[in-house]
Amino acid sequence: MSEEEGNLPEGGSGEGKRRTGGNKEDVDLASVYVSDAQYNRNIYFDTSPAAVRLYLRYHHWLLKVLLYVFILVDLSLAVFEDPAVFPLPTWATMLVELVCLLVFTVRLVHYAKVIPRDKFWKDPKNICIIIVLMLTLVDMIIYGALRAADCSALRWSRVLRPLLLVNVTEGRQLRRAFRSIRNALPQIFYVFLLFMFSLLIFALMALKLLGKRGLTTIDGAPYFRSYLDIVFDLYVLVTAANSPDIMMPAYNASSVFAIFFIVYILINTYIFMSVFLAVVYNNYRKYLKEEVRQLVRAKRHKMARAFGVLQEGGEPAVSRADWNQLVRRVRPGISTAHRELLWSVSDDKNQGRIGKLAFVQLADLLNIEVITLKSRPHPLRNVCPALYLSAPSRLLCRLVQHRAFAVAYDIIILVNAVFIGLDEENPMVADSEWAFLALYLLEILLKLYVFEPRTFFSRHSFWNWFDTVIVVSALVATIINSALKSSGGYTSRQILDIVFILRVLRLIRVVDSIKRFRTIINTLIRIGPAILTFGQLIVVVYYIFAMVGMELFKGKVTFYGDPGDPNEASCGNPLLGGTAFARLGYCKNNFNDVAASFVLLAELTVVNQWHVLSGGFAIVTHVSARIFFVLFHIVVVIVIINIFVAFVLEAFFVEYSLEKSDLQTALERKIEELELAAAQEMLESHLVNAMETADSDQGSSQSEDSKPGLRFKIASKRYRTVDALLQRMFESDLDPEDDDAAGAASGNFSNPTFSAA
Amino acid sequence: MSEEEGNLPEGGSGEGKRRTGGNKEDVDLASVYVSDAQYNRNIYFDTSPAAVRLYLRYHHWLLKVLLYVFILVDLSLAVFEDPAVFPLPTWATMLVELVCLLVFTVRLVHYAKVIPRDKFWKDPKNICIIIVLMLTLVDMIIYGALRAADCSALRWSRVLRPLLLVNVTEGRQLRRAFRSIRNALPQIFYVFLLFMFSLLIFALMALKLLGKRGLTTIDGAPYFRSYLDIVFDLYVLVTAANSPDIMMPAYNASSVFAIFFIVYILINTYIFMSVFLAVVYNNYRKYLKEEVRQLVRAKRHKMARAFGVLQEGGEPAVSRADWNQLVRRVRPGISTAHRELLWSVSDDKNQGRIGKLAFVQLADLLNIEVITLKSRPHPLRNVCPALYLSAPSRLLCRLVQHRAFAVAYDIIILVNAVFIGLDEENPMVADSEWAFLALYLLEILLKLYVFEPRTFFSRHSFWNWFDTVIVVSALVATIINSALKSSGGYTSRQILDIVFILRVLRLIRVVDSIKRFRTIINTLIRIGPAILTFGQLIVVVYYIFAMVGMELFKGKVTFYGDPGDPNEASCGNPLLGGTAFARLGYCKNNFNDVAASFVLLAELTVVNQWHVLSGGFAIVTHVSARIFFVLFHIVVVIVIINIFVAFVLEAFFVEYSLEKSDLQTALERKIEELELAAAQEMLESHLVNAMETADSDQGSSQSEDSKPGLRFKIASKRYRTVDALLQRMFESDLDPEDDDAAGAASGNFSNPTFSAA
Repeated sequence: MSEEEGNLPEGGSGEGKRRTGGNKEDVDLASVYVSDAQYNRNIYFDTSPAAVRLYLRYHHWLLKVLLYVFILVDLSLAVFEDPAVFPLPTWATMLVELVCLLVFTVRLVHYAKVIPRDKFWKDPKNICIIIVLMLTLVDMIIYGALRAADCSALRWSRVLRPLLLVNVTEGRQLRRAFRSIRNALPQIFYVFLLFMFSLLIFALMALKLLGKRGLTTIDGAPYFRSYLDIVFDLYVLVTAANSPDIMMPAYNASSVFAIFFIVYILINTYIFMSVFLAVVYNNYRKYLKEEVRQLVRAKRHKMARAFGVLQEGGEPAVSRADWNQLVRRVRPGISTAHRELLWSVSDDKNQGRIGKLAFVQLADLLNIEVITLKSRPHPLRNVCPALYLSAPSRLLCRLVQHRAFAVAYDIIILVNAVFIGLDEENPMVADSEWAFLALYLLEILLKLYVFEPRTFFSRHSFWNWFDTVIVVSALVATIINSALKSSGGYTSRQILDIVFILRVLRLIRVVDSIKRFRTIINTLIRIGPAILTFGQLIVVVYYIFAMVGMELFKGKVTFYGDPGDPNEASCGNPLLGGTAFARLGYCKNNFNDVAASFVLLAELTVVNQWHVLSGGFAIVTHVSARIFFVLFHIVVVIVIINIFVAFVLEAFFVEYSLEKSDLQTALERKIEELELAAAQEMLESHLVNAMETADSDQGSSQSEDSKPGLRFKIASKRYRTVDALLQRMFESDLDPEDDDAAGAASGNFSNPTFSAA
Repeated sequence: MSEEEGNLPEGGSGEGKRRTGGNKEDVDLASVYVSDAQYNRNIYFDTSPAAVRLYLRYHHWLLKVLLYVFILVDLSLAVFEDPAVFPLPTWATMLVELVCLLVFTVRLVHYAKVIPRDKFWKDPKNICIIIVLMLTLVDMIIYGALRAADCSALRWSRVLRPLLLVNVTEGRQLRRAFRSIRNALPQIFYVFLLFMFSLLIFALMALKLLGKRGLTTIDGAPYFRSYLDIVFDLYVLVTAANSPDIMMPAYNASSVFAIFFIVYILINTYIFMSVFLAVVYNNYRKYLKEEVRQLVRAKRHKMARAFGVLQEGGEPAVSRADWNQLVRRVRPGISTAHRELLWSVSDDKNQGRIGKLAFVQLADLLNIEVITLKSRPHPLRNVCPALYLSAPSRLLCRLVQHRAFAVAYDIIILVNAVFIGLDEENPMVADSEWAFLALYLLEILLKLYVFEPRTFFSRHSFWNWFDTVIVVSALVATIINSALKSSGGYTSRQILDIVFILRVLRLIRVVDSIKRFRTIINTLIRIGPAILTFGQLIVVVYYIFAMVGMELFKGKVTFYGDPGDPNEASCGNPLLGGTAFARLGYCKNNFNDVAASFVLLAELTVVNQWHVLSGGFAIVTHVSARIFFVLFHIVVVIVIINIFVAFVLEAFFVEYSLEKSDLQTALERKIEELELAAAQEMLESHLVNAMETADSDQGSSQSEDSKPGLRFKIASKRYRTVDALLQRMFESDLDPEDDDAAGAASGNFSNPTFSAA
């Protein structure tokens, strides 16, 4: 049916007019359902045309970016508020915060208009945002009043700020991560209790065995005398941070005591910490699987609604015209060729219309990135064909495409590495830098001469982009550096640092030449976006601990930076004189501003020496300050880091074990069937030789082999959404369940229960 | 068939005589196949009756124990050899070693007689043992000669000793662990290369950014000046051992440099170390699965051979008589009831004979531990029924069995914990110890009064045994302690320590009262035997590193133990004066004897401060000594500890996810069917009330419900062999494969290819 359909001009309005009235709204509504399914949004919006338009606006990318910008501004206010990295007057930060609050309120009101009122008030995340906004406002008023009256005041609501990051509509991944932590908590808690019991028993034994022997630590302090100190010391030993120091006095007294500590570490560090990982990992998998199952069910549900909106009369099918309109609405930038490909996958029996089961797949199909490769002729060939096609030019092209070219440049990179390692004040070495820069530039220019520039800089050519950006920046920085040097004789340290970093980064390129490395790196790049979710999680937890820590410990420890300063030896606090904290020069590890706090929390996450760091703060305040640090250790190291490790493990296992998903394989089969598939190697060698002029983006009617210049390739290793990666993680287990869900959906939802306008 | 079969007296000879000649050898051969299958032994032995008898003798438990005793003696010679913990003359240790070598040779000759000659010489583990024995002999001769000529000599062959542990026939688990490491090595290697590349790039960047700034460490040493030192420092930073010290000079110079270190730790510590775990874990699973698949195949193969030996004439079935004889031969201690149960599971259609498929299951059935529970009457009831059945006695019994009794004792334990924590020199506290001891003794006596003693001390009542042993030892130790105190006024410190340890250990019992804890502890106990394999692995690696370390570093660092000794401040080596190694008092961490070496290696495994430890030894020898320590870190921490974590993870997942295996369920179904099953609770409350006299171990003809006094229970959570645990790990994945293997086996092996006598 409608082979000429593809020839129609882009844009929904033309087609919309040919159809019955009200259809544009239907397509709008259906496209909203489809993109909700595609991005796994679970929002019960109103289905009136006005609400749908509001809803579309709500999901406009610009509004989302703006929202995140304002969240970022709100969070980074900590940099300017007392205790500040860059102090600003209170009225300025308060004004900015008010603007942020206003933006969040407007966004929330917008959301409230989109979804039915009862749904809005039932959703805990909206309630949470409202409470946060109100508490912040109350806190600002109290703070302002107290400051006006010159009283000491506390901005306690700053702790609540990261909750906004979690509770905005777009924070789905983050909420899911928190949910998976919350679900794992009961199990973790029991293991933790058992671990604490073991710790207390060992501490009791240590007290009885070692407490009465009159041993002293290397500092001359009494060793293992008080039960609570022993418990803390042994807790620290679990993290290995005070090994072997904590053992030495007992070990020096008698070698037999080494057995006590080795057994302790074996049980509490190796076995219990593995059990923690096992429990966290197991729960993570279990609940993630359940959540993904619900996601898949919700997706099918939404697709079924979209189908219900689009289906014509009583017939359970969607026509090609409607389908085309829908896809163009959902993904405006899609090429006709790509769309035709998707259609031919869905309508594999060539019936001109697709049934429900095929339609439901659309959301997944759209999530598979298909790269439309076009073998465009090189622009130089158009400009000056005689020269570009001459024998020397062809020889050059073959040379650059030869493997030896790549190998030669790998060798150049290695030589460059040696030169970077040499002393750059040697003029020979300094000059060599220009030679290397020239060589790298030459490489890029040669490649641009040989390969079509738009292909060279296509969105998926990570290493081409990487190379060009690094080399060009290095060139610019080196020129600026030389200019500064030759003019004033003064070299800016910052620019030189940037030059150095860029030079070293250039070397990374060599990794791409080794196939084994490429696979590992690709896996790491693939799980990159998901790691960003953990980045947000860490920011939320760090921010809360930093705010609390700053209120508790600000100004207690000071860094002077001048070794001659008499205060430096005790970090400006006489209580610290002679302690390990001051002796090791940890004065800059303090809570005096938000940047220092984050660095300190990062050090605590790494765990080593955290007993010295926490000990220092306990000395300057109170011994109970240790609770803050132990709590941080439990939350970040035992829970979050373990979830992170579980995630990386799972992602690697998926990569190792899982074949491409069924849908992808169907698409690939189709691509192969249409004889449009091209292996990357074949493609690259053809890019120059394929001489057909075919910029057929708007071209149509994908009959077999009529488009030799157009090739598809599945960017199967990239996922448009983190959800897609998660779904892929558990796809193999989910398939039977999926069918059930699809069956249920077709039974229950073929007629959407919401009223369509 | 043959319902009276079970009535025959125990012992194979009576039955053997009723059958045709030569059958006894058949049963012998079949029983060897079955027990090989049961314990997953893969030995191609000769099938002549004489060889089979030799083979049975080879597997006699006494010989195995003797072998391990001699291996232990051989390994522990390091304690007495120079550098010795307890010095013995060279001739004595050499003599003992010669005896050990002789024993190993005899054992090997025995093995050579059992299996065909060509198989013997093709087996790498035999070749390895022969080479180790010969090299040791050569080394001993050279060493003896050199010592006789008063030259300095090296006992280099000591490094080879642990190889015996790996290569003896019984070291299957250990060999498998080594194989799984070897198989994972290529993958680990590539990740390691990439990790090293990342390390080198970061080091180059650090050199360029920080090397020229003239920074110094807290000790005033130049900071980040030499590339190799930076590489080492950053390698240490991956282990977090020198965090945050290594960062502080740069961080003090400018806060921005913290970013460099945080990015470094994020990439190299968190991401790469997770990838290492993922790679190790993935490979571990993959190869383990393959090995277990082969094990299962070999097991079926052997069972098929046993079936071939036993089947009568052309009929592919084994009669009940033969089967009974076989089971009694394989497991002499089996009770008739248990045997009947197994038969009824195998012959579930009551045909009197079993086919191949049912027969093949026998090895697995035998591996399932079935506890035969007998409700014996209490002996006191037999002796003095009037008193034991009187009302007060019955009340006492009900009291002791009440939950409140257990709760009361849990409270007593907690009170006891507080008293232990108090100062024991307070006479009130010291006296309270007697009260607690009396209470615990009373508890055990009461329980013995109420429960049948043989049931109370049955093999699977871990906590009853634990309680009794601890309480009785504590009683003995406390009495000795008091006797010594009152007689000489002098208290032996050792005895007091033992008393303290026993007192604290008593508290552990409380864990058993909390169900959640019990499940975790049970899982840990269950994976205990498998952890022992890792223990052996660690011993092998530690031993090799300890031997090399002792040769490299012995006597370089000395511990004096006297703070007044002027040498103590520099550990007896002027080179160490003022270094962190001496300052932290690490003098006792040395390679001066094998015990100290093992403790030091354990400290290096825990990783913390290993740069200080390795730095100390680098100072007293040469900077290249670091290689020894880095190598140890790579082998033990990156490879072995990760495999250990992978194993614990996998074991926990199996516990969490896997249902009981099919075979076990079949057995359980049968037990239920026979109405012999009894829940533990029901059983315990019935133990006293069940009044039937029925010591029916030798009883027969298990007709339904004729034996109410006899109950079965599957000890489903215990595995007789580690192999069984491993097989269970992958059972769910293996099932389809198993059927194939069984099919193949029935096709190929129904007539054994070895000649049966």
